[in-house]
Amino acid sequence: MLNKFLAHIQSEIAQLSYGEKPKELYEPISYLMKLGGKRLRPALTLMAYNLFKEDWETATKPALAIEVFHNFTLMHDDIMDEAPLRRGKATVHEKWNRDVAILSGDVMLVAAYELLSEVPDARFKQVLKRFNRTAAEVCEGQQYDMNFATRNNVTEAEYIEMIRLKTSVLLGFALELGGMAANQDVVVTNQLFEIGENLGIGFQLKDDMLDVYGDPEKFGKQVGGDIIENKKTWLMLKAIEKSKGKPEEKELKEWIDKKVFNSEKKVAAVTDIYNRLGIHELAEAEMNIYFKKGFDGIDGFPVAEERKTMLREFGKYLLKRDR
Amino acid sequence: MLNKFLAHIQSEIAQLSYGEKPKELYEPISYLMKLGGKRLRPALTLMAYNLFKEDWETATKPALAIEVFHNFTLMHDDIMDEAPLRRGKATVHEKWNRDVAILSGDVMLVAAYELLSEVPDARFKQVLKRFNRTAAEVCEGQQYDMNFATRNNVTEAEYIEMIRLKTSVLLGFALELGGMAANQDVVVTNQLFEIGENLGIGFQLKDDMLDVYGDPEKFGKQVGGDIIENKKTWLMLKAIEKSKGKPEEKELKEWIDKKVFNSEKKVAAVTDIYNRLGIHELAEAEMNIYFKKGFDGIDGFPVAEERKTMLREFGKYLLKRDR
Repeated sequence: MLNKFLAHIQSEIAQLSYGEKPKELYEPISYLMKLGGKRLRPALTLMAYNLFKEDWETATKPALAIEVFHNFTLMHDDIMDEAPLRRGKATVHEKWNRDVAILSGDVMLVAAYELLSEVPDARFKQVLKRFNRTAAEVCEGQQYDMNFATRNNVTEAEYIEMIRLKTSVLLGFALELGGMAANQDVVVTNQLFEIGENLGIGFQLKDDMLDVYGDPEKFGKQVGGDIIENKKTWLMLKAIEKSKGKPEEKELKEWIDKKVFNSEKKVAAVTDIYNRLGIHELAEAEMNIYFKKGFDGIDGFPVAEERKTMLREFGKYLLKRDR
Repeated sequence: MLNKFLAHIQSEIAQLSYGEKPKELYEPISYLMKLGGKRLRPALTLMAYNLFKEDWETATKPALAIEVFHNFTLMHDDIMDEAPLRRGKATVHEKWNRDVAILSGDVMLVAAYELLSEVPDARFKQVLKRFNRTAAEVCEGQQYDMNFATRNNVTEAEYIEMIRLKTSVLLGFALELGGMAANQDVVVTNQLFEIGENLGIGFQLKDDMLDVYGDPEKFGKQVGGDIIENKKTWLMLKAIEKSKGKPEEKELKEWIDKKVFNSEKKVAAVTDIYNRLGIHELAEAEMNIYFKKGFDGIDGFPVAEERKTMLREFGKYLLKRDR
């Protein structure tokens, strides 16, 4: 069934039209949307709708709105990060130019609003309000992420709040939206949001771990990329905290401060520090807290057991994934 | 009455809050919104509402949505144009940085949607659809404007279509929105859109003329800025057309191709070419066509004569303005 959802989403994305002319404005949107990705977010919307109703195709447009919005954030984030590649292909600002990436991104956000309007009329204002809040929070998360790059006193709590905003509120909203499209009341849609929010924080912590401990064959990105960039992930922040007063404190600081280094050596050395400090296990435990909250939310969710199977399986896939 | 509208808009903008933290995300929004400007667009929304109803304050939030959207486009356009100044003050990307200007702009677009939602529930979906279309068209206009910079065969019709998209559809929508907020039917709101669209094209042609023929004391921007940059305004395109086969053809081409020049001399020389070709009069005539269409629309508009006075006066102010 999940595969059916994903196939449906793929085929709908292949057919989506955002506009015709000028082509510099609209081609980058199709280009980025067709680069692929896991399509987790629209799948969550369809799954949430399907918790209540059989005609899940009805939620297609809102589900696509979430995916278009997500890709809009990628187009603009890639400019800010000066990223040359996205899913192994040239980013929009590289393939076209910066101005095209700014403006196409803007139109993409408008396109997300347009797709979002295909929900029952009576719920539309509520959907919009919640989407507006979510969209603003995603931007807040991105700004915090950028601010953290130049700060040396980021706390664990600040980091969790940053990934909550940048990543997990959108997963939460993806589920909530499916519930709203299926005309569920606010108590139920809030529960859906919380399930997605918790799974989302777990999902991002998993991502941080895969960056260090992932199998290079499967992960797709350069393993250790966060370490090379001194990115303040949960693992790095925890290592800084746990190394205090130990030999690893100086060692870690030296690697962080090094301007010229061999990337492979830095990744190996910092990973070794993480291992000596038991960071992987601590991160696993932290991740499990959020996944457990998510699964508890699914357990207590007020629909028949058999309807919840897919969402639970999907949560397990997010927990176990190796790419 | 118009002054009452404008004072109301100013005081509402002064009080608007877009969000608190992180401050890098929200401060640029307040900064740009408070730099000033003529506030034409929100005034148009209040005026259109007031054509039908007395309680024009009801349309305040939607009116502000238009102004926030307009300023969002300025924030992003200023990045693309690498403009150092906006209304005589540092642009957001100069005062903060490029990434802040991208991301604050994104949140500003979301804020515009949030303000827009304060229309009667029954009309909300229609308002959103029309706003989405307008927003996409404004981006299309900006992309055409950028494309024109590197093209040498831009036609007059293409130019008019570009300014229609970039500038006038938003003035049209500002009026239309006032009508929708006052619960008018689609025939009436379409008429309002067309009035604004025509006044808007006239408004932009006036802007092109003021850039060359404006009084430096009053205009606020550098007179001749468009000439210095070889901007393909209506006047420039017309001069290229009208100079064909005349001595002015070579003269104009030389000034356009010059890489090193004295700005004042170039402005004086190109203005002189315009004068010999009668471009100012042709531009006036072209502008008058659109203003006439706008005023004819007001004349035929189905409300009592006395209700239309303010909109007509406002149109005349746009026609006569010297700044």
